[in-house]
Amino acid sequence: MSSDAARDGWYRVRMPVRFRDLDPMGHAHHTLPLVYVEEARASLWRALTGSAGADSPDYIMAEVTVRYHARIAYPCDLSVGLMVRRVGTSSFLTDFDVRDPAGVLLASGRAAHVSYDYAAGRSKPLDPALREALQARCVAAA
Amino acid sequence: MSSDAARDGWYRVRMPVRFRDLDPMGHAHHTLPLVYVEEARASLWRALTGSAGADSPDYIMAEVTVRYHARIAYPCDLSVGLMVRRVGTSSFLTDFDVRDPAGVLLASGRAAHVSYDYAAGRSKPLDPALREALQARCVAAA
Amino acid sequence: MSSDAARDGWYRVRMPVRFRDLDPMGHAHHTLPLVYVEEARASLWRALTGSAGADSPDYIMAEVTVRYHARIAYPCDLSVGLMVRRVGTSSFLTDFDVRDPAGVLLASGRAAHVSYDYAAGRSKPLDPALREALQARCVAAA
Amino acid sequence: MSSDAARDGWYRVRMPVRFRDLDPMGHAHHTLPLVYVEEARASLWRALTGSAGADSPDYIMAEVTVRYHARIAYPCDLSVGLMVRRVGTSSFLTDFDVRDPAGVLLASGRAAHVSYDYAAGRSKPLDPALREALQARCVAAA
Repeated sequence: MSSDAARDGWYRVRMPVRFRDLDPMGHAHHTLPLVYVEEARASLWRALTGSAGADSPDYIMAEVTVRYHARIAYPCDLSVGLMVRRVGTSSFLTDFDVRDPAGVLLASGRAAHVSYDYAAGRSKPLDPALREALQARCVAAA
Repeated sequence: MSSDAARDGWYRVRMPVRFRDLDPMGHAHHTLPLVYVEEARASLWRALTGSAGADSPDYIMAEVTVRYHARIAYPCDLSVGLMVRRVGTSSFLTDFDVRDPAGVLLASGRAAHVSYDYAAGRSKPLDPALREALQARCVAAA
Repeated sequence: MSSDAARDGWYRVRMPVRFRDLDPMGHAHHTLPLVYVEEARASLWRALTGSAGADSPDYIMAEVTVRYHARIAYPCDLSVGLMVRRVGTSSFLTDFDVRDPAGVLLASGRAAHVSYDYAAGRSKPLDPALREALQARCVAAA
Repeated sequence: MSSDAARDGWYRVRMPVRFRDLDPMGHAHHTLPLVYVEEARASLWRALTGSAGADSPDYIMAEVTVRYHARIAYPCDLSVGLMVRRVGTSSFLTDFDVRDPAGVLLASGRAAHVSYDYAAGRSKPLDPALREALQARCVAAA
């Protein structure tokens, strides 16, 4: 997996499809775009926070929509893109896409994330430094 | 997994959470509601078609939205519900929910499915008998 | 999933195969017997310790062997068996099998587990009460 | 994932750990070494057969042993190695290892594979060209 921040606001990582991702239909199971996008998000998170650790535990997914445009084949080195679309007090929106090496769109969608206090069991305000970093990357949807 | 068709139109199956479903946060990974609902859909499919086989290969998911209401714990025997919401010529909509044994809502959502001709690589009309069976179960959203 | 402790020393649970367990060959991927057996082990663990919680975090797997006897189909309610074979100071051995509802052997194997102190990063003696409970269930291999 | 055939007979690929590979203990679940090794095997298969397609469907796993040497962390770019150890008429043995970027051994093991005729439901002789290619790579265990 390698990453780059394209000039257009999309943060992209490359990631290989695994044989285990496939289902009996011979394509990646319909849950896999979410797994691929999670890697892009974790990579962006590490870039924004300077942390080398795991996907930060202090936000949770509130809602996600995935649209399936074409079958994801194996083997394939996917390009997975992430774009910050809106940053609120305790939540943020991201758009994502999954493309084949030629740029063909395979899956796309949007996710709403909430900053979460696991000890208290409720949402909490985004860390100010992280909020600022997210806003600096934010490209409002047309 | 056991199943029953409640009087209110929701088709429900029970299914145990597995340890492997959990992620480092200690709850089921956010892809798992889709896996649980797939079992409800396959069970309904077997009931409607009289087939004992695998999840039918002749429809694909076009779009799905999941909302996360509460963390899914382990161990837990979930109740997973499915409701047919609309039946078109070559597609149908389903609503779903995932509940704990006390009925507490953990996840919910909606999926759009398209009848698919794998050989031709394009959508095809729903089989008339299946279409009729789906319509007989359909409860239009309010 | 339901469980019972058969008179012959095998602890058994029932567990449904999921569609997501399958790979493109149409049978459960070869990692799945380990996932099924993990559920039997966690269930036995809860029975032995009286805990309602997750698979105990204080032992790790040191080595496992799986033999594949027949393909695992879908849908199927498997019977998964676990037998304690040897109990040492800080480790224990288990044998396992995975059978179809007619009792046909699909997979079998043996695992070595080590009691582990995550904070210290090394093995530790088994808790005396747990060690006694494991020994009471132990049936030495012929 | 990139690959290279080292002079010592080990075929190696690189592969990123995913967040979804982790379990509640914060390391890759104990099934994951098998998933990583499957990618090395599929990559070697494509190199040997010149095929660009999926993991060949014409062999199955008969038995596998995994030893766990150290926890697999995230994020991490693993090095996964594969070595052909014996080639028979209808079967072959492989050794494997999983290492961190510094070469530290995390998991290792051995797998027995059988050439399989899915239509007939029984083993079949290895394809002569493939058998020769495997033998050319084979390094008998000491």
